[in-house]
Amino acid sequence: MLKFVSLLLALSFCQGLQHNNIDDYVEAEPVFEASKYGSLWPLPQKVQISEVSFKLTSSSFRIVDAKASSAGPSCSLLQSAYRRWWFLTDELTVNQPVAVLKAPKVWGALFELNFCPPTLHLFQKSINAAIINDFPRFQHRGILLDSSRHFLPIKVILANLETMAMNKFNVFHWHIVDDQSFPYLSRTFPQLSEQGAYHPYTHVYTPADVKMVIEFARLRGIRVIPEFDTPGHTQSWGKGQKDLLTPCYSGSKPSGSFGPVNPILNTTYDFMAQFFTEISTVFPDGYVHLGGDEVDFTCWKSNPDIQKFMEQQHFGDDYRKLESFYIQKLLDIVTSTKKGYLIWQEVFDNGVKLKPDTVVHVWIGGGSDKEMSSVTAAGYTTILSAPWYLDYISYGQDWQKYYKVEPLNFEGTDEQKKLVIGGEACLWGEYVDATNLTPRLWPRASAVAERLWSAKDVTDIGDAFNRLSLHRCRMVERGIPAEPLFSSYCPHEYKGV
Amino acid sequence: MLKFVSLLLALSFCQGLQHNNIDDYVEAEPVFEASKYGSLWPLPQKVQISEVSFKLTSSSFRIVDAKASSAGPSCSLLQSAYRRWWFLTDELTVNQPVAVLKAPKVWGALFELNFCPPTLHLFQKSINAAIINDFPRFQHRGILLDSSRHFLPIKVILANLETMAMNKFNVFHWHIVDDQSFPYLSRTFPQLSEQGAYHPYTHVYTPADVKMVIEFARLRGIRVIPEFDTPGHTQSWGKGQKDLLTPCYSGSKPSGSFGPVNPILNTTYDFMAQFFTEISTVFPDGYVHLGGDEVDFTCWKSNPDIQKFMEQQHFGDDYRKLESFYIQKLLDIVTSTKKGYLIWQEVFDNGVKLKPDTVVHVWIGGGSDKEMSSVTAAGYTTILSAPWYLDYISYGQDWQKYYKVEPLNFEGTDEQKKLVIGGEACLWGEYVDATNLTPRLWPRASAVAERLWSAKDVTDIGDAFNRLSLHRCRMVERGIPAEPLFSSYCPHEYKGV
Repeated sequence: MLKFVSLLLALSFCQGLQHNNIDDYVEAEPVFEASKYGSLWPLPQKVQISEVSFKLTSSSFRIVDAKASSAGPSCSLLQSAYRRWWFLTDELTVNQPVAVLKAPKVWGALFELNFCPPTLHLFQKSINAAIINDFPRFQHRGILLDSSRHFLPIKVILANLETMAMNKFNVFHWHIVDDQSFPYLSRTFPQLSEQGAYHPYTHVYTPADVKMVIEFARLRGIRVIPEFDTPGHTQSWGKGQKDLLTPCYSGSKPSGSFGPVNPILNTTYDFMAQFFTEISTVFPDGYVHLGGDEVDFTCWKSNPDIQKFMEQQHFGDDYRKLESFYIQKLLDIVTSTKKGYLIWQEVFDNGVKLKPDTVVHVWIGGGSDKEMSSVTAAGYTTILSAPWYLDYISYGQDWQKYYKVEPLNFEGTDEQKKLVIGGEACLWGEYVDATNLTPRLWPRASAVAERLWSAKDVTDIGDAFNRLSLHRCRMVERGIPAEPLFSSYCPHEYKGV
Repeated sequence: MLKFVSLLLALSFCQGLQHNNIDDYVEAEPVFEASKYGSLWPLPQKVQISEVSFKLTSSSFRIVDAKASSAGPSCSLLQSAYRRWWFLTDELTVNQPVAVLKAPKVWGALFELNFCPPTLHLFQKSINAAIINDFPRFQHRGILLDSSRHFLPIKVILANLETMAMNKFNVFHWHIVDDQSFPYLSRTFPQLSEQGAYHPYTHVYTPADVKMVIEFARLRGIRVIPEFDTPGHTQSWGKGQKDLLTPCYSGSKPSGSFGPVNPILNTTYDFMAQFFTEISTVFPDGYVHLGGDEVDFTCWKSNPDIQKFMEQQHFGDDYRKLESFYIQKLLDIVTSTKKGYLIWQEVFDNGVKLKPDTVVHVWIGGGSDKEMSSVTAAGYTTILSAPWYLDYISYGQDWQKYYKVEPLNFEGTDEQKKLVIGGEACLWGEYVDATNLTPRLWPRASAVAERLWSAKDVTDIGDAFNRLSLHRCRMVERGIPAEPLFSSYCPHEYKGV
């Protein structure tokens, strides 16, 4: 027996830069121990629990980088992770000789650290030896938060990034602006938030704030994909950017109200080019979400200049063609900034020409299986959100509904299925702000997390209930107000209000 | 102009003892100022806002007890209220010469202090002179919280008592124990919580805890009515009290499980007499809630001793008669402790003989109008909860549904209507604990608060929306995570997670 229990980390390299698919690692092997199955969430791909049980004793536990590790002490990403993880161990450690965690990329180590003793140990005093072989089923496992309907203080965003990491989510889809407010403080166009935020000082995300969110996420293996949704959902943009939105007409006169982005002016595209150039440097991720959903044609139809333009372009009465015209130009602009893009399903439905690596985001509730078939049949990569709109609440254990979803349950070839890279749980903000976001999101989003991480045949709802109950208490113990599944208790109840 | 702005308090006497109807005061007259109508919640009975506007200036504001006040400096209840209230004023005060708050009883002053400047002033920099004449429409305005399905830490209970006072609720219905757990630490029967609580040390309310809750409530003009629900809903009681529950039978043998309280043993009534004697001293309120809902007869029917007893008593097959037999004896026991009681509607429905001053609590959703008619036709005082089960959640602004309820909208004479003394919003605990209770309760319960306080014709839903939006921001500003009504913002967002 060694004097210290060690967690050896053998990593191939310290990949500090964010990239688009951070989950292509395999073989994380914490040999040293595992909990009873009881508290693992999301369930790893392969867990072998041995009969050998180890008693947990006092603190003689150390994390040691393996000699073979190419990451090790010089990798600040990992060292930060050790520190966070250590903080969570509290009094407890293990008296087993050694545990090994192997991961070909650093992101794997980050996520698998969740399975170390403090995570597993909730109601137990001893743990069994185990071999865990783990990797995610889907590479894109996201949470959408909406900071426009209600402003979300940075503190709330960071706390939920922390919780996302505990649930092995790896994408924060930041629906940062919308009709209601424009909290993103743009260096190039500061008047957008000056005029369009709920308040220009207290309800904005400064460049420093945004940077902090991105770095906090990166340290936890989470990509930040910002969404700047156009041409609809842009009322707040119009306040600070003259002529950006279409003036609506009442009869022959402007009514004073405005519609979607004005697609017929060159100034619109000049603005977008400048704006998305800034976005491409502020957000390091390879992708940006461009929205494109729910464009209301009423205002466009009312405007005589738009009507004239429709004629010139031979669009007839088909305003979807006008929408496509706009989107096409926008995609070209964004492509020139060297970013890939995600778009909501309508953009695909309307026949816009997309780059082959475009990700189509399926969100409309009715018929989403058919939509998944069509999108993948057309050869596009896709992510699913339709069944996971967590802003819709109801009485009882609705997490089960989210859990039972099978993302590949649509008609299509194996090739088509491979194009589904994951999904996102969406918590739109109409009825959600700092007061209720966290308990509304957790552990309901945890159900989505397991569906996107664990093997397809992990579908036992009873077993899920048992593990999720413990997992939610673990979140509570770490200060996250994750709401209860049903009548029960946690050893340490939430201490806030 | 006087040098200091004064709030003169003219009170008839300092009523420090809790009594059952604490709302029989009238004529609270803060002459000094009022907000725009905009942020008053619940809306006072009569508000006259004058054209005269006063600018809010720096701190030269004082609260002075009127010479005519019989309460004044020696009334600790009021002095505590001043201190709490003063703490909320922050930087703002008024430069108007004088404001008068008159109340015949101290409870009136407590509630009306809510209308003083800090409450009114949220977005304003000046306020108009006004006369407010206020009193509650219903005397019983309650919130039910359930500490059995989930244990509620004392901190959560106190925070919600504070918020109740802000909403002019005056009854905390403490559904303290139930099937799932028995967190009440009884001096007489400590084994009840020793065995029946989720945890005997961390998940119990000690005598000191209970005392603190009661005093904290009293200082805010809130009665604490505990509920000890029998003969059903008692699984947790059986763990620490042998022979209290009915052994269920499977064929001719005990199945090992237990049913409702065993109504045929003398030991049951000895226990109840001792237990409720303790309760009568621990809880000073004149009333105790005795439950009596949802008694499942299956177990009683299976038990041969019970069957025999039924024969002896000539009850035939009517187990409601057995239930009534039990309840009747329980009511006599509680009457002997000099307390009045509330009971759930089934006890009335089953024809139990009740004391004339019994309060019947109507809770069953379907046909509650009819039930209100029957209960009041029989001459009983009643309170309404059926439309206000706040544990049932749904997407959107369900506060409007609670707001639109008219408690007297049932068939009956004026005399019958007078028997309706109020209602309670119930937040049952199956899906609620410290993590999500507060945002789930507020401001949804605020809708019930206004319905029970304000005049019958206060039904403008748009006006309510506007005022409630400000009122909820006021709660947020005071550290209460009251959830949003809809897309919007508060000047100071919630600072927790």
